[in-house]
Amino acid sequence: MIDIRPVANTIGKLVITLGAAMVIPMCVDFMAGDPHWKSFLEAAFLTMLAGGLITLATHGANHSLTIEQAFLLTAAIWAVLPAAGAMPFMIGAPYVGFTDAYFEAMSGLTTTGATALPELDNLPKGINFWRGFLNWSGGLGIIVVAMIFLPVMKVGGMQFFKSEGFDTLGKILPRAFDIAREMTWVYIGLTAICAIVYILLGMTGFDAIVLAMSTCSTGGFSNYNASFGPYAGVLEYAAAVFMILASIPFIRMVQLVRGSAQPLWQDVQIRAYLRWTFFAIAAIVVYRLLWLEAKHPEAIIRETVFNVVSTFSGTGLSSTDVTQWGHFPFAILVVIGLIGGCTGSTACSVKVFRYLVLFQAVKAQLRRMQSPHRIFPLLYDGRPLDRDVVDSVMTFFTLFMLTFGLLVMGLAMTGLHPRTALTGAWTSIANVGVLWGPELSPNGAVDQLPTAAKWMMTAGMYVGRLELMTVLVLFLPRFWRS
Amino acid sequence: MIDIRPVANTIGKLVITLGAAMVIPMCVDFMAGDPHWKSFLEAAFLTMLAGGLITLATHGANHSLTIEQAFLLTAAIWAVLPAAGAMPFMIGAPYVGFTDAYFEAMSGLTTTGATALPELDNLPKGINFWRGFLNWSGGLGIIVVAMIFLPVMKVGGMQFFKSEGFDTLGKILPRAFDIAREMTWVYIGLTAICAIVYILLGMTGFDAIVLAMSTCSTGGFSNYNASFGPYAGVLEYAAAVFMILASIPFIRMVQLVRGSAQPLWQDVQIRAYLRWTFFAIAAIVVYRLLWLEAKHPEAIIRETVFNVVSTFSGTGLSSTDVTQWGHFPFAILVVIGLIGGCTGSTACSVKVFRYLVLFQAVKAQLRRMQSPHRIFPLLYDGRPLDRDVVDSVMTFFTLFMLTFGLLVMGLAMTGLHPRTALTGAWTSIANVGVLWGPELSPNGAVDQLPTAAKWMMTAGMYVGRLELMTVLVLFLPRFWRS
Ligand SMILES: [K+]
Ligand SMILES: [K+]
Repeated sequence: MIDIRPVANTIGKLVITLGAAMVIPMCVDFMAGDPHWKSFLEAAFLTMLAGGLITLATHGANHSLTIEQAFLLTAAIWAVLPAAGAMPFMIGAPYVGFTDAYFEAMSGLTTTGATALPELDNLPKGINFWRGFLNWSGGLGIIVVAMIFLPVMKVGGMQFFKSEGFDTLGKILPRAFDIAREMTWVYIGLTAICAIVYILLGMTGFDAIVLAMSTCSTGGFSNYNASFGPYAGVLEYAAAVFMILASIPFIRMVQLVRGSAQPLWQDVQIRAYLRWTFFAIAAIVVYRLLWLEAKHPEAIIRETVFNVVSTFSGTGLSSTDVTQWGHFPFAILVVIGLIGGCTGSTACSVKVFRYLVLFQAVKAQLRRMQSPHRIFPLLYDGRPLDRDVVDSVMTFFTLFMLTFGLLVMGLAMTGLHPRTALTGAWTSIANVGVLWGPELSPNGAVDQLPTAAKWMMTAGMYVGRLELMTVLVLFLPRFWRS
Repeated sequence: MIDIRPVANTIGKLVITLGAAMVIPMCVDFMAGDPHWKSFLEAAFLTMLAGGLITLATHGANHSLTIEQAFLLTAAIWAVLPAAGAMPFMIGAPYVGFTDAYFEAMSGLTTTGATALPELDNLPKGINFWRGFLNWSGGLGIIVVAMIFLPVMKVGGMQFFKSEGFDTLGKILPRAFDIAREMTWVYIGLTAICAIVYILLGMTGFDAIVLAMSTCSTGGFSNYNASFGPYAGVLEYAAAVFMILASIPFIRMVQLVRGSAQPLWQDVQIRAYLRWTFFAIAAIVVYRLLWLEAKHPEAIIRETVFNVVSTFSGTGLSSTDVTQWGHFPFAILVVIGLIGGCTGSTACSVKVFRYLVLFQAVKAQLRRMQSPHRIFPLLYDGRPLDRDVVDSVMTFFTLFMLTFGLLVMGLAMTGLHPRTALTGAWTSIANVGVLWGPELSPNGAVDQLPTAAKWMMTAGMYVGRLELMTVLVLFLPRFWRS
């Protein structure tokens, strides 16, 4: 049997941290003169109490994790922390039930950005800050986990990125704190620069902080019903730059800060990502110009850049109603959402790296069909790809598509319109954030959906964010026996 | 450089055969007193002339094929024969253009069953016979190719079914004729029994022959605008049985005829196929009964059995408007269409065998994640699965989903409604036959679609039927150099 005490102990400490963080939105509300600050005080107290009890109950646990415990910890973080993060939504305004509150917190911490709240413009400032903060801390969490845990867990081919001298779990935890610290600083720095740029280009201070947090985490929560709409204009270009930076491998930005830009420019994944982004934008711009829209060409280019980058990076902010662009642009947006940004970033979905591996595998397979007795080595960036990595990537892709199909079917089963079922499954599993359909509230919120559909989407965001296999492995009976 | 003469020689002979076959619908029209028989005479003459010229020009070519020539022959059969099969549609009624005629013949020979003709009820009998015959001969062709060529070509894991002592191409052709002969007799027998059963249960002789040909090839062409609708009733059950028989491995039926039923009952693929069919039917029946439809329960069960089996087997005949069943049943139909029947039959799509292999691979991957240093052998029906087979299956699935996505996007680009684009891509790549959307004619015909969309669907049917990789391999530059 697995000893779950070290896992529970870490979870307890993270819950305390999240509870302590509620003091910030409390101050936001207090300074705004909004009596809602008392709700945050209550939520913070209850959350820290719960976290404290868990920590105390498991005090003295051994902290060197086995591989099973690492899986369990990863799965537990994104299952338990949303419950803590949901507290403020239930205790004060908007006073939603547990289903919606947990959905909102899960959407925040998985950096999905789909909302269960139909009215955002008039929420207490603290709540909108808290939503942005959930996005932001979820993004930070995933960078740490993606960099440190997933490679050792061999999830979806991530072992390709395993650092040198890093291949036993015993060495992970101390080193993890080092990497986490360095990345946290880069992440804080990126968010701060983003907020400053937003303010310089005309945003209010509060909006800049909330939207910077949701931009740099590719989260997508906005404090406006119209998402990024109120700031349409030059700010769309600025946001596009930061969404791209947030969806390329963070290790490259750490290297950039250390003074070497070369690894960033030469990264084949980043190059492919930028190339594909360019093609998607170009195709849609040409299509929209040919359809002779009344809009000014600059507006067409600007809107397309923003919304394509937002979908491709999995951010999910929107500045206009993209369904008005026509079927072809919409199809492109769905497809790039199923690609997603780069590995090692806050981006979700299948990711560019895995597609590059898949293309290599398909090419090798075709060659092998023709010359059955020759060996064709698979290369990525000049490095040979292990069979193990290729296998993992293909399994991941298969599982991703099967889960996606299953989720569409499940959502359709609750009676949803096919468009809602399709984009709802898509936005959940790929953690994009936007969805479309007749059952949604005017701001795109899911509050009117059946409860079963909300929980399916919540589950979809969860398994999508954790790269599916991290969760599925827990269902092997032998996992619990070892 | 590849010597294309033996390929062209075989193609020439097949074109002559197809031209000679036009004599049958000519007789049908003649006996019906329809002057349209002259169109078939003209088409037969022109087709046989063209085939004869090709054959003469390449006379004396060496007939032992290299692996490259086998690929080229397979790809050429399904590209050239539709052009020959299209002749009667252009020369006489319905007098359609080349795009629609080629679409119709491609749909027939790939056993897809989507039609480009908006009015079927009043066509000359010969033309409706010809459509059924294209389905039927396409089905026969694919059984032969799937049994003999694809395993040696290692397409999509089909090498798993490679027969003993059968692993060099030199041995293929003589043996191919043996197997083809035996299978042809079983195929003819099955179609004859099907037609007799149809007549006994109340069909007219002509309808029974046309519909038996399209049932036993999982083709799906009907001589009625309402597809199988005019024969709703007990005939739906009968058709369901024959559609299932047509979508299980034909080698099992050959064994059955030889007196051993055991291989059929013990085939894990057939068992999984029947199990999943049962689940799909049960889920939809329960859903429809819970929605308290006005219809009699027997009608609900009967309709569900027929239309689920028709979609799962990739036949594509329909007896009712399934879009009226609700979103969940529709989602199930789309999913089972993406599964398809069994390998070694006339069924298309991904097929049950490949999903069974995928599930095994996912399970092994999950176990390996947890115990990185243990080896988990993959088994299928107790036999170990080679890495090579698993690789091929995963590559196939990846390619299938990518092509499907690309096709949806391409169709959307022509301005089609998303529902038409989605079901059009689905029906093409998986060779199902039915599609839905506002741009279609009342009988579901594609005649009103943009020309570009028709050609994309034609290409989709082609690569879908040829298991994608058979076609893609021709695009490797090294293929032509060898
Ligand atoms: K997002
Ligand atoms: K069909």
